[in-house]
Amino acid sequence: MYTKLWLDYSKQVKVDIFGNALESGSPLVDNAIVELRNCKYMDGLRVELEISKNPEISEEGYKVSFDSGMGKVEAVTETGLIYGTFRFISLYRLNKGARFESLENPASKLRMLNHWDNMDGSIERGYSGNSFFFVDNDIVIDERTRDYARFLCSLGYNGVVINNVNVKDEACNLINEKFINKVKKLNDLFVSYGVKMFLSINYAATIDDDSVASADPLDSKVIDWWDKKIDYIYSVIPDLGGLLVKADSEGRPGPFTYGRNQAEGANMLAKAIKKHGGILIWRCFVYNCQQDWRDLKTDRARAAYDYFHDLDGAFDDNVVLQIKNGPMDFQIREPVTALFGKMPKTNSMIEFQIAQEYTGQQRHVCYLIPWFKEVLDFETYAKGEKPDNSKVVDVVTGKTFDYKLNGMCAVTNTGNDENWTGHDLAAANLYGFGRLAFNPELSSEEIAEEWIKLTFGDDEQVVSNIRKILMMSWPAYEKYSAPLGIGWMVKPGIHYGPDPDGYEYDRWGTYHKATCKTIGLERNTTGTGYTTQYNEPWASLYEKPETTPDELILFFHKLPYDYKLKSGKTIIQHIYDTHFEGAEDVEEMARLWKELEGKIEPAAFKRATDRLAHQVEHSKEWRDVINSYFYRKTLIEDEKGRELY
Amino acid sequence: MYTKLWLDYSKQVKVDIFGNALESGSPLVDNAIVELRNCKYMDGLRVELEISKNPEISEEGYKVSFDSGMGKVEAVTETGLIYGTFRFISLYRLNKGARFESLENPASKLRMLNHWDNMDGSIERGYSGNSFFFVDNDIVIDERTRDYARFLCSLGYNGVVINNVNVKDEACNLINEKFINKVKKLNDLFVSYGVKMFLSINYAATIDDDSVASADPLDSKVIDWWDKKIDYIYSVIPDLGGLLVKADSEGRPGPFTYGRNQAEGANMLAKAIKKHGGILIWRCFVYNCQQDWRDLKTDRARAAYDYFHDLDGAFDDNVVLQIKNGPMDFQIREPVTALFGKMPKTNSMIEFQIAQEYTGQQRHVCYLIPWFKEVLDFETYAKGEKPDNSKVVDVVTGKTFDYKLNGMCAVTNTGNDENWTGHDLAAANLYGFGRLAFNPELSSEEIAEEWIKLTFGDDEQVVSNIRKILMMSWPAYEKYSAPLGIGWMVKPGIHYGPDPDGYEYDRWGTYHKATCKTIGLERNTTGTGYTTQYNEPWASLYEKPETTPDELILFFHKLPYDYKLKSGKTIIQHIYDTHFEGAEDVEEMARLWKELEGKIEPAAFKRATDRLAHQVEHSKEWRDVINSYFYRKTLIEDEKGRELY
Repeated sequence: MYTKLWLDYSKQVKVDIFGNALESGSPLVDNAIVELRNCKYMDGLRVELEISKNPEISEEGYKVSFDSGMGKVEAVTETGLIYGTFRFISLYRLNKGARFESLENPASKLRMLNHWDNMDGSIERGYSGNSFFFVDNDIVIDERTRDYARFLCSLGYNGVVINNVNVKDEACNLINEKFINKVKKLNDLFVSYGVKMFLSINYAATIDDDSVASADPLDSKVIDWWDKKIDYIYSVIPDLGGLLVKADSEGRPGPFTYGRNQAEGANMLAKAIKKHGGILIWRCFVYNCQQDWRDLKTDRARAAYDYFHDLDGAFDDNVVLQIKNGPMDFQIREPVTALFGKMPKTNSMIEFQIAQEYTGQQRHVCYLIPWFKEVLDFETYAKGEKPDNSKVVDVVTGKTFDYKLNGMCAVTNTGNDENWTGHDLAAANLYGFGRLAFNPELSSEEIAEEWIKLTFGDDEQVVSNIRKILMMSWPAYEKYSAPLGIGWMVKPGIHYGPDPDGYEYDRWGTYHKATCKTIGLERNTTGTGYTTQYNEPWASLYEKPETTPDELILFFHKLPYDYKLKSGKTIIQHIYDTHFEGAEDVEEMARLWKELEGKIEPAAFKRATDRLAHQVEHSKEWRDVINSYFYRKTLIEDEKGRELY
Repeated sequence: MYTKLWLDYSKQVKVDIFGNALESGSPLVDNAIVELRNCKYMDGLRVELEISKNPEISEEGYKVSFDSGMGKVEAVTETGLIYGTFRFISLYRLNKGARFESLENPASKLRMLNHWDNMDGSIERGYSGNSFFFVDNDIVIDERTRDYARFLCSLGYNGVVINNVNVKDEACNLINEKFINKVKKLNDLFVSYGVKMFLSINYAATIDDDSVASADPLDSKVIDWWDKKIDYIYSVIPDLGGLLVKADSEGRPGPFTYGRNQAEGANMLAKAIKKHGGILIWRCFVYNCQQDWRDLKTDRARAAYDYFHDLDGAFDDNVVLQIKNGPMDFQIREPVTALFGKMPKTNSMIEFQIAQEYTGQQRHVCYLIPWFKEVLDFETYAKGEKPDNSKVVDVVTGKTFDYKLNGMCAVTNTGNDENWTGHDLAAANLYGFGRLAFNPELSSEEIAEEWIKLTFGDDEQVVSNIRKILMMSWPAYEKYSAPLGIGWMVKPGIHYGPDPDGYEYDRWGTYHKATCKTIGLERNTTGTGYTTQYNEPWASLYEKPETTPDELILFFHKLPYDYKLKSGKTIIQHIYDTHFEGAEDVEEMARLWKELEGKIEPAAFKRATDRLAHQVEHSKEWRDVINSYFYRKTLIEDEKGRELY
């Protein structure tokens, strides 16, 4: 048993849908009809589904309206029609039966979720149980899979990568005879909901074939092997979305092993997939993860830019680069990667992570949409110092440059837990990211409110309190964890809980170099030069502490603890203050939730209550460890005389 | 395939043993005869085995002699006879055929190894592969088991605990019908080599029996349950040595749960086992492992004494307390636990660890016998300020007080690796601890030399170089790891590699509390008062830094980094110097080993060479992390200007 995702369609009620046909013959339209038929909110309504040639509506867009008992969903494709049907149901509920009309076209081409699911059923960085795609090295297709496809469709997600980017063991066989027919079945299910399925592949698969024994992308045997392999895959699954590759990263082999660059690696695969209309997604998370911590020159933050920038224009037009939002790895705060706005001739999409790897692992509430909004609103100055459709959001929706492919994806936070996302409130990120990818102009508050109403109903206190909790949560987590953009300070391996020096003497390139006098790594031109990767005026602004935003100041600069921030506080006092505040915020969040007792379904209420109780304690643990770490390092007292250990 | 333990008896040569009977009818004597028959070194010798009433020889002692082609092993029991037979073979080899005569009586009653083997085949803190007793939740008895029993016998080990003190899952069934017959078979094998077998039991086993559902040692249902259970065990295995219990420790339930003390818990079991002549071994490793790191008052070091001291005299006479050598947990350096010499009326034995949990995990060479010797030579002043047979060694061999039971045990370092101990040189600890328990007057050098000659032959350079390596190894490890008795500073969980703050904000009670000015926790009367647990003059000596030995100074005191040690160096300079020295020592050790190429069996040579290469690198990692940690904390420069990071 598990609960339904945000919309409860479960009650079967007979409804009248455009009066006649209950089956159209097309899987997409049939599935749309089934939604309306089975939806308890549609009882007694008439809803018309129409495929039109309305030029206002884009390929995956729709126009939905309702007035006086009559509804209409209009689209120019069947995919748009089914997206629109779900949106119609949502809007009907949100408007409580009042009139509405809405024309909605998706902003970006690709709106995807990446699963890091392994075929043994585990999920890398999964915090909601095990995989619902894979159990014991086999593929599962059941009621839950269908509900998941429906969920994706209901938000206009149009792509899903079903397996972990670290492809090993049995997952290598997803593209072989052993599993290909089951993969096809799963693909067909997603396709019937307007979602393209993608597979992560092992770039080095050819090494294990003794007749090739190489993964050199310029080796004709390698080229030939992939050409045949991809022909084979598409012969079984002609409408597969494409393939995703993590190469030359964290132990994964790649073109570097053969002295080739990333474009040579990607294009070899892209050419093979192009004749089938497939897309090749290539991750830019390439860096040296065997760094010597004693090495003060190398800067992991530079890596993506250093490896990819000079290759702009070298990638085939069916390749899209998948670029993480920041130069490090999904921290609670880091700058926007400098690569956005610097690749005018290379299809690019942004990669976020709603799996809360570094942001509380779905045991802490951390509504990430405000953070993603900040990233998307970042001005890249790609067309010069005057903004010109050149924010990150413009880049990844193809407005800045003429990208054939663009979009947004997120590492998903789902699993086979009864409530899908471990923490009931973490589902706000799953919902929210889908909405954001479709329409980045929505505010975080709007998205939160929609999700709350559709999930918990529209009791005013419920909406108000949960919205407050969500909106407080990301700032709170930032306050009580690693300060001022310094990042990390988590327990190694598990990435949960405070350990200020946990990564300090390790190989991952994530150092804060705190001494008794200073903290931070200089990344300006006197340091690693990372700041020079940015367009002006950012390069100049980040060059000096005085013009670097406070929240990123320790990312860019090495500073003494008594350095005065723009807020007027010293760094050390800022650390003390925010850490006390953050833990207090969580107490407030728990209090706001507690007020809702009786208004939330009891099982869900208890689950979130328990997790909030843990967060209250764990945020104090964060507070005390971080504060003590800096207190012991400096012996500078808290101005407010609070207890430090 | 695996290599033999230190003595290679594998070559079958016909020998003439006291001219006539080749079988005696007694398993012990038969096994002794087999050793002589099968031993390649005994070719053409006549060896007489005699059970006499020689009053010089104690129950498990022997007198062995050789002259002009005639050997003799004399003992007063069959157990002594088989121990003596092995010793005879060793001495014959060590004396290279020259005349010898040696009367040897074991110093202590119990000379044991504790296995932390789990029934799934894993070994808690095992660094030599998996268990050779247990595979896939079953018991294995094969050639290797026999060789292991022979090994124990050959050093006069007279007891072995075959399963982990943390008894869970299938191991709970070792005392049930499911496994008891296999357990008996294993027991019989050990008995035939003069070794008593012991089982670790789950103190709380009665909780899982619904008809008892308690583990209160004063509850008659609990008493009755154990009485019957122990009757059952002994009805199948009448010569089982006894039982070992870890209670109220690290999550294990115990009498505290029911408001009872440790003696009440132990005596309940002791009474049941007494009628069968069994021994109940009760571990004193009881402490609060859920400590709040913010709590500055609680001191884990006090725990064993606080929980047990007042119970002196309250334990039954077939109970023996198993007390760890130090108050913490097998660190590279810690004081001797204050409990030795304070329990005149309670049988006590000392627990060491040859599994190198905190001392390099058998990837680093760390010959521990010199460390154990220091512990055993510690003067407890149990009889007043004038020493009077009152060293730790006197206490645990029953000379200080009239202990009915006494002795030494060690957590073993064995596993199913081909060479038994992971690192070939780690076998020196396995051999050495057995010799030490039998005869604590032997020097570390003597033991090392014996082991080297019996293992690698008596080439002068081989003996000299390996002896140097072994004797350098413990001091080297101390130099490059946690300084001056502060302990820990290892990676949490795995306990391998440096992480100075790894345990600092955790629940284990193992804190160094380093700030930018000072390091250490005050344990004298102004602090936690741990020093008062010692007899005078130790209590007074440990009270002040000036009279505390340098090597323990940070265990007992909180001191500034510029505090001058008795060596004349400041603490910080001592840290820098020892860490550079320690890493240099390892390079010397690797060099000494390399000189032996061609003189050591190639596979063994390569194994140790590879591990030494790792140790060379890893000791530098230790050096740099520890030095950088303190350098960053203080920004005090190294007087010698060496590189710090």
